[in-house]
Amino acid sequence: MKVSPSKLYHFLLNFSLILIGTTSSIYAQKKPNIIVFLVDDMGWQDTSLPFWTEKTPLNARYHTPNMERLAKDGVKFTNAYATPVCTPTRVSMMTGMNAAHHKVTNWTSPQYQVSSDNADEQFAPASWNYAGLSPKAGIPNTIHATPYPQLLKDAGYFTIHVGKAHWASVGTPGVSPYNLGFIGNIAGHAAGHPQSYFAQDYYGNKPGKNTMQSVPDLEEYYESDTFLTEALTLEALKTLEAPIKNKQPFYLNLAHYAVHVPLQADSRFYQKYLDQGLDPQEAKYASLLEGMDKSLGDVMDYLKAKKVDQNTIIIFMSDNGGLSLTPPRGGIAHTQNLPLKAGKGSVHEGGIREPMIVKWPGVVKPGSTANQYVIIEDFFPTILEMAGIRNYKTIQELDGQSMLPVLKQPNYVNNDRSLIWHTPNKWIPNDGPGINYKSAIRKGNWKLIYNMRDGTKELYDLKADIGELENKAAENPEKLKELSGLLAAQLKKWNSPMPIVKSTGKPVAMPDQTTSMQ
Amino acid sequence: MKVSPSKLYHFLLNFSLILIGTTSSIYAQKKPNIIVFLVDDMGWQDTSLPFWTEKTPLNARYHTPNMERLAKDGVKFTNAYATPVCTPTRVSMMTGMNAAHHKVTNWTSPQYQVSSDNADEQFAPASWNYAGLSPKAGIPNTIHATPYPQLLKDAGYFTIHVGKAHWASVGTPGVSPYNLGFIGNIAGHAAGHPQSYFAQDYYGNKPGKNTMQSVPDLEEYYESDTFLTEALTLEALKTLEAPIKNKQPFYLNLAHYAVHVPLQADSRFYQKYLDQGLDPQEAKYASLLEGMDKSLGDVMDYLKAKKVDQNTIIIFMSDNGGLSLTPPRGGIAHTQNLPLKAGKGSVHEGGIREPMIVKWPGVVKPGSTANQYVIIEDFFPTILEMAGIRNYKTIQELDGQSMLPVLKQPNYVNNDRSLIWHTPNKWIPNDGPGINYKSAIRKGNWKLIYNMRDGTKELYDLKADIGELENKAAENPEKLKELSGLLAAQLKKWNSPMPIVKSTGKPVAMPDQTTSMQ
Repeated sequence: MKVSPSKLYHFLLNFSLILIGTTSSIYAQKKPNIIVFLVDDMGWQDTSLPFWTEKTPLNARYHTPNMERLAKDGVKFTNAYATPVCTPTRVSMMTGMNAAHHKVTNWTSPQYQVSSDNADEQFAPASWNYAGLSPKAGIPNTIHATPYPQLLKDAGYFTIHVGKAHWASVGTPGVSPYNLGFIGNIAGHAAGHPQSYFAQDYYGNKPGKNTMQSVPDLEEYYESDTFLTEALTLEALKTLEAPIKNKQPFYLNLAHYAVHVPLQADSRFYQKYLDQGLDPQEAKYASLLEGMDKSLGDVMDYLKAKKVDQNTIIIFMSDNGGLSLTPPRGGIAHTQNLPLKAGKGSVHEGGIREPMIVKWPGVVKPGSTANQYVIIEDFFPTILEMAGIRNYKTIQELDGQSMLPVLKQPNYVNNDRSLIWHTPNKWIPNDGPGINYKSAIRKGNWKLIYNMRDGTKELYDLKADIGELENKAAENPEKLKELSGLLAAQLKKWNSPMPIVKSTGKPVAMPDQTTSMQ
Repeated sequence: MKVSPSKLYHFLLNFSLILIGTTSSIYAQKKPNIIVFLVDDMGWQDTSLPFWTEKTPLNARYHTPNMERLAKDGVKFTNAYATPVCTPTRVSMMTGMNAAHHKVTNWTSPQYQVSSDNADEQFAPASWNYAGLSPKAGIPNTIHATPYPQLLKDAGYFTIHVGKAHWASVGTPGVSPYNLGFIGNIAGHAAGHPQSYFAQDYYGNKPGKNTMQSVPDLEEYYESDTFLTEALTLEALKTLEAPIKNKQPFYLNLAHYAVHVPLQADSRFYQKYLDQGLDPQEAKYASLLEGMDKSLGDVMDYLKAKKVDQNTIIIFMSDNGGLSLTPPRGGIAHTQNLPLKAGKGSVHEGGIREPMIVKWPGVVKPGSTANQYVIIEDFFPTILEMAGIRNYKTIQELDGQSMLPVLKQPNYVNNDRSLIWHTPNKWIPNDGPGINYKSAIRKGNWKLIYNMRDGTKELYDLKADIGELENKAAENPEKLKELSGLLAAQLKKWNSPMPIVKSTGKPVAMPDQTTSMQ
């Protein structure tokens, strides 16, 4: 067909006008939507989806069909890590920095300029950033950094936070998600857990009964029987209405308060776990998990109904290992994450290894598994790369690495990278396995743990011994030396906070300065 | 110049690509931004800007330079009306309905399904909608209606509420601005006033000290000296960052808690009023007013700095007359709005006439004055017309009329319209002038007040007697009959709630069924 110049002109003119017409009042969406579905205190085994090489009794105990569904559509990470407790993980995610670098190494008290550290006979506190993350300079005891939601917002994303924030203490700018790049915020504030999951308790807002943990913004549900997990889900989906309608790409940070204590029964699922023979505390815990899983399913259903599921990335993650203290957990202490050792608060695998799944239609191979180890600070560069945002500027130097190579090729292997955990803090009054005053490093399948109390070290081969039961330090002096040196070099480079030995007034020795073994 | 087809093709192709590039990720804004700056309990004379024909002692007392500045840029309405108390006004604004029609005729208790009416010996309560506004059907004791922010959001507006909401009680959907068409909400909830304006009090959120009036969402300012009015302003301006950057039109509902009780000193302005000789309570009140006025100035400065002031409409309004009860106000009761009679809660002018200013660059004549009477339900069709939204559908039938004719021509006159006020409620335990169990109607300059207690009526000529001091009922039987008939017909048409006479078990007589005069 021959086209005359005049016809061509009119065709192109019309084409231009069509473009004006369709894009003048709405976003012409190209960028993917991104949802981070972050669970609180959920362990690696707290799911019916096996993350280990074999299905465990815990996998059989819990029912999380929607995690299974998500994994069928995406990639399951078997070696995804966070930090041992919540705020360090959340700040690492928001800053792309390792906790030993941003120095928020323990949870932030919601109270103004109060350290959450417990007092100790041997050590005076390390100078950690106990007021959390700050988007502004000059706020005492905070890490001043650029959070990635700000970069997403600057690039046109509709950025929403729903649920637990816990990035900073009251009286500092980081306490407000609006200052961290979010356009909207529901229920996120200084607290690290809800006073109550129950609407009947007004989620902790009954007159005269409030604490720093009273959950804001949910008055609509008072006097109903809407469990907190459900209320947050309903609110989150409500916020997506506008960007979906406007074809504006969105970023949703759906950070559930579940399954953090208080362990309260989600009545929609509680009875079945009692019937299964669990004690009431563990049945409550299981019900919290399944309520969270229902939320995940509701989100997936909503995206599908709105026809945006194929353009929406979902990243499922938890912020630290499952709680293994008894009480409030039932059973024997530190067995709640088996085959992993210990739980929340510990640098052992039970405290840091997380159930992570990524669905990314068209990019990630459905039903795949990635064994490459990754860590929470990797979220920052990964999410920005997912959004196609490049050459961005940040106040902080990033430690995280983009997970795109793994996402594109799940069998990707890099055993040269070192991951570091650092707790120069006294999280709980009594030490436990891997808990209080510990550092750790993983490179390849080797993991070293440094005990600041006595300078001892442990060395584990995670491939052969995921439970960290056999200390291989004595028989591998070279590996011990290598990892001690790497860990010490990084802590020195970052000027990481160290506890002060009261008897000497000096910081604890670096891991390469001691030779003792456990 | 001769252009070859090939060159033309490439030119147009490039043109198309430029269009894609410039409009793909942002809105191409044409619609104006709209800000409603709503003050709480501010009287018609609570400003240095004279709204009467002469400057009054109250105008001399207060300092509101930014209202004066706004009036220089816009039109001042001398006969703008709201209802006698807050929730009826706010619901009329959101629904475009007269209060006698939506039946939310008194303030909503923040408590679930609790009527705020006081008990009375003569009357049993009218069946009013004491749970407020609902965007969903089937919620007991609510008016089910479509709020205009929903229509703005549907049309692509970025809709934000900051400050006092007070549209509905807890446990109902209307309590959440997210359900009323707002994309974001800061500090708006069920309560009608703040527990405290002070950051040092955590705005009422100190542990164990909360009430239904504790202001949510402002943890960032705890431990600072940021007065509530200032915190809300900072938060409001923060929310505008994204839409301005994205060139998305925005609607901001900046609804200050000031100047509602508790009368607490805004320390930035308090001392000057003490020095002026005011008693402490009145100095506090004046400081609340000037803090509010500073907020208005900050908003105007921000818009100018962001270069959007010429495309932003500002509507300044109050929700009812100034409080005239003593205490908490100083002085003699019901003199606080002179020359107007009485104050908040009253159907006299002191309770319902409001300081209203509209700035609309390019449309409204700067420095003009409009004497046409308008009323709060007019906001609904006016704002939608400002936004260029036509042929919208609402659940409710609108009573409000667009103010565009007045805005375009400030000397516009329509004396055929009737405005109605209706309080079949016992707002306070003791009746006062125009307070409790009253209806009123204005047509032209004539105003009729109907007293339900004894069936008496008052008739005033507002042009000659703005203070409603001379009852002209006896000498104008025709006007009395006309207005009684108009009022009764409208109340019947709307099936407006009426108190029940305990002695008969029947509703109070309609105003056209009584002939007695005061």
